[in-house]
Amino acid sequence: MDFKVTPWEVEGEVDYDKLIQEFGTSPLTDDILERVQKITGELHPFLRRKIFFSHRDFDWILDMYENNVPFAIYTGRGPSGHTHLGHMMPWIFCSYLQEKFGANMYFQITDDEKYMYNKELTLEKTRGYAYDNALDFIAHGFDPEKTFVFTDIDYAKTLYTIAVRIAKRVTFSTVKAVFGFTNSTNIGMIFFPAIQAVPCFLPSELEKRKAPVVIPAAIDQDPYWRITRDVAEKLGYYKPAAIHNIFFPSLEGPSGKMSASAESSAIFAVDTPGEVRKKVMNAFTGGRETLAEQKKLGGNPDICTVFQYYYFLFEPDDSDLQERRQSCKNGEIMCGTCKKELADRIVQYLTGHQERREKAREVLDQFLLKD
Amino acid sequence: MDFKVTPWEVEGEVDYDKLIQEFGTSPLTDDILERVQKITGELHPFLRRKIFFSHRDFDWILDMYENNVPFAIYTGRGPSGHTHLGHMMPWIFCSYLQEKFGANMYFQITDDEKYMYNKELTLEKTRGYAYDNALDFIAHGFDPEKTFVFTDIDYAKTLYTIAVRIAKRVTFSTVKAVFGFTNSTNIGMIFFPAIQAVPCFLPSELEKRKAPVVIPAAIDQDPYWRITRDVAEKLGYYKPAAIHNIFFPSLEGPSGKMSASAESSAIFAVDTPGEVRKKVMNAFTGGRETLAEQKKLGGNPDICTVFQYYYFLFEPDDSDLQERRQSCKNGEIMCGTCKKELADRIVQYLTGHQERREKAREVLDQFLLKD
Repeated sequence: MDFKVTPWEVEGEVDYDKLIQEFGTSPLTDDILERVQKITGELHPFLRRKIFFSHRDFDWILDMYENNVPFAIYTGRGPSGHTHLGHMMPWIFCSYLQEKFGANMYFQITDDEKYMYNKELTLEKTRGYAYDNALDFIAHGFDPEKTFVFTDIDYAKTLYTIAVRIAKRVTFSTVKAVFGFTNSTNIGMIFFPAIQAVPCFLPSELEKRKAPVVIPAAIDQDPYWRITRDVAEKLGYYKPAAIHNIFFPSLEGPSGKMSASAESSAIFAVDTPGEVRKKVMNAFTGGRETLAEQKKLGGNPDICTVFQYYYFLFEPDDSDLQERRQSCKNGEIMCGTCKKELADRIVQYLTGHQERREKAREVLDQFLLKD
Repeated sequence: MDFKVTPWEVEGEVDYDKLIQEFGTSPLTDDILERVQKITGELHPFLRRKIFFSHRDFDWILDMYENNVPFAIYTGRGPSGHTHLGHMMPWIFCSYLQEKFGANMYFQITDDEKYMYNKELTLEKTRGYAYDNALDFIAHGFDPEKTFVFTDIDYAKTLYTIAVRIAKRVTFSTVKAVFGFTNSTNIGMIFFPAIQAVPCFLPSELEKRKAPVVIPAAIDQDPYWRITRDVAEKLGYYKPAAIHNIFFPSLEGPSGKMSASAESSAIFAVDTPGEVRKKVMNAFTGGRETLAEQKKLGGNPDICTVFQYYYFLFEPDDSDLQERRQSCKNGEIMCGTCKKELADRIVQYLTGHQERREKAREVLDQFLLKD
């Protein structure tokens, strides 16, 4: 296998069709997309462009919705650093789902996990990032009446009480097989899948009904839900459904996902305009060695991270995107121009985000679940 | 090895000298007992009779005390059923330590552990037993100003926050070696040693000082403290000290410890006088086949569970105990009489305990730590 995907590491160039097979998920078919379009009136670009490309039981979630059984949304964040665009992608999608389906939203921040996983991180540090990340999440326009944000440490009593019920039914063999844990894995990480599973059942506990739950998240988080799905029915809950996105590209090249640990590979929510411009201007593109050559032969948008940024987030209009692609291939637009335009769009986006982020500070308490 | 001791099972006839060697603890020497006698003015019968027989760093606890650094006491209970006399033995000793040394007392009730360990137990059931057991503990006369009782579930937020720091430093290899965990052990039990270790550090957290802690408990609980001792200094705490008791005998014979799961082997705190009498009259003794034979040859107190009951709890006076032993060996006292006297003493003891237990109900809240 020339690529590797676990919840902690993504390496190599990812073959997403293989991943669907390997993980045992289903591709998000045109049938399902049509159903979503019928209900919501429009398809989010993430769906049109198959950025969300794989799922488990998302069709069943739509069935439930059509039968007036509201579903809840669950996603989360491991607070090991500042938020970057890759983290924000599922949140943009969650916000769309909440708006279109009126769904309750549960957001788990795994300050415990990041602390236990990373030798360098103190608990104080992960807890600091936790609230920093929560602001970025809330800035996406979630409804405070319907959105519940918690960190594992601050909500530990509620979570632990449900986690022990899950943990009792999951053996070391299982987590070993699913996560590749070994004898040198620490006992906190071994237990953690039980904590991570809790929010799948939390809507049922808090809403006092058997609640369907769908999890939008990058595909690398899928292993957690396999275990959760195995125990759900034994505990009297529905199996959580999931909808998976592909990885947001690194600015440094076409392989792997954006990483919070490699500063220059990612655009962070807190980046200044200067930082954004510098990173974009240094990005890996599909350009030629010389301008002359590029004018003659055209660029290659299919390997270009700048083009990918337009594709993922910064050119929602399909025909404008197609036009940009063609201009590149025809040698009509040079990398410098294309990068500058992207940098402008990102700066504009982040300026708005950072304003919403500051406002989120004032309403944070309305969102927080604490014991 | 013809005996086996883990925190969950005790089988066979236990060789306590071997256990000291195997567990790597130290025998409680006459030197240490003399120091205790000097400080407290009297030696508890449990010390005189070497019922508490082994320790880790108990001499250091005395050093600290003599240097005006107060120590805290920590013990606990796994709430899988009603309390029996075997559970109460360390509590009697804790109460003595609190009275003589003015020590703060921390009492952990592991409702999570018992639920996760035992397939048959629901969480509701272990939580029910938890408060039932807490009453038995409090009934031993602890000072509400200095005694802190909590169940893992109701204090989970505080415990989990400290447990993740411990868990990060303990691998599966370690818990596998110490507890004999396997691939089929559930992930809750694998994590649990971290929760069990927390009260060793809780006095430091709550009292805001580096607090020495001593754990009186049956020797089978020692493995937990080995792990705790390994991580303590890395986390900036003292290693917990321990003082270990031998197992309270089963009424059914000289091997093993009293067990909450074998009803007739144990005297429970909630037993009625009728139940007590019936169990004692059916107890295994060192008597002969016939009265005539016993009068001629004498009984054997060394294998007699009735004599052991006198030795452990129901004849604190050494010369009276010695006299009873001699009468038995001389064939002067028959098993029937000896049993009847023991039953009377147990009934009297339990009647008092059950009254104190009812009173404990009213003050329970003064003892409880909750998040």
